[in-house]
Amino acid sequence: MSRDPLEELLETLRCLPGVGARTSQRMAMHLLERDRQGGRRLADALATAMRDIRRCQRCRNFTADELCRVCSNPQRSDNIVCVVESPADVLAIEAATGFQGRYFVLLGRLSPLDGIGPEELGLDLLERRLGNEPIEELIIATNTTVEGEATAYYLQEMAKRHGVGISRLAQGVPLGGELEHTDRSTLAHAFASRLPLRD
Amino acid sequence: MSRDPLEELLETLRCLPGVGARTSQRMAMHLLERDRQGGRRLADALATAMRDIRRCQRCRNFTADELCRVCSNPQRSDNIVCVVESPADVLAIEAATGFQGRYFVLLGRLSPLDGIGPEELGLDLLERRLGNEPIEELIIATNTTVEGEATAYYLQEMAKRHGVGISRLAQGVPLGGELEHTDRSTLAHAFASRLPLRD
Repeated sequence: MSRDPLEELLETLRCLPGVGARTSQRMAMHLLERDRQGGRRLADALATAMRDIRRCQRCRNFTADELCRVCSNPQRSDNIVCVVESPADVLAIEAATGFQGRYFVLLGRLSPLDGIGPEELGLDLLERRLGNEPIEELIIATNTTVEGEATAYYLQEMAKRHGVGISRLAQGVPLGGELEHTDRSTLAHAFASRLPLRD
Repeated sequence: MSRDPLEELLETLRCLPGVGARTSQRMAMHLLERDRQGGRRLADALATAMRDIRRCQRCRNFTADELCRVCSNPQRSDNIVCVVESPADVLAIEAATGFQGRYFVLLGRLSPLDGIGPEELGLDLLERRLGNEPIEELIIATNTTVEGEATAYYLQEMAKRHGVGISRLAQGVPLGGELEHTDRSTLAHAFASRLPLRD
């Protein structure tokens, strides 16, 4: 006998991050009672995405084609490449900034203890791009964690070998944040890196 | 040109209740990066559930068969029927209590202004059951909202006509709750309905 479809749905919804028993139940009831059309569309979208989405050949971001939308866009500049850890970082930068260059998605960060070295992050591919493409600036936008910083250092050395300029996202107090609630190391860094104001 | 599968996934995930742009993105990235197998299984479960799940012929709960698991279980008592508003209420009662009777799921509550009358709630089906089945007690477990109370009153009158006993879930201060944080009307009701303690 096969499993009950409702039980199967309640259980599989829990593979979504942040979804426990209660949320799973709320989601299933909502779709069954009020949005079967949406449920069917979600089933199709999930099946298609899981089957078709793969890595862009050039920047390793998610795409259903050989090249992602950014890499295949002839309007964007080939002279500047932003290196990020994950596809979510690309979405965040696209949504927040007017960046018009290309990306490189590491899909992780250097972490030798977990067996993640330069090859797992596709850094050989990035090195080839630094050699073959007219890249003038590499923006390093890895996270500011220990592994992210180690990865940034590695990228910096690589860019230097190819004579490519390097920049790093500014670090400091977040905009709209209150000093009182800023964590100690961010505050210490921002204080030490204070900038003189011009008249 | 068809839509980008990633964009389609990000958008359709938002048909889930409580899922906005950020959560949708987190869910999509999680499935794509770390749990494609789970994503495929969820797609299948959703498609099956949306296609196969319908109403139980006897109690109107969700099921993939003609009768739901409770109705088709010969071990459960036919003498006692619990009336609830939604399938989620059945799950809650099954999880919390040792109830061994049958259910009737209204899938709503009386709300004449919204065009929801006795027929929309399948109350003709319940009336037939009251006439044909050996029901001795009807437990009214509608919500304690205005519409829920109106529905409860209607059910009460119906049960009386068939000479069937009626009960209603006890109302009062929730267990483990603090008086200080109990809402005023609950506290007033619990106070007025206080029970004498026996030695």
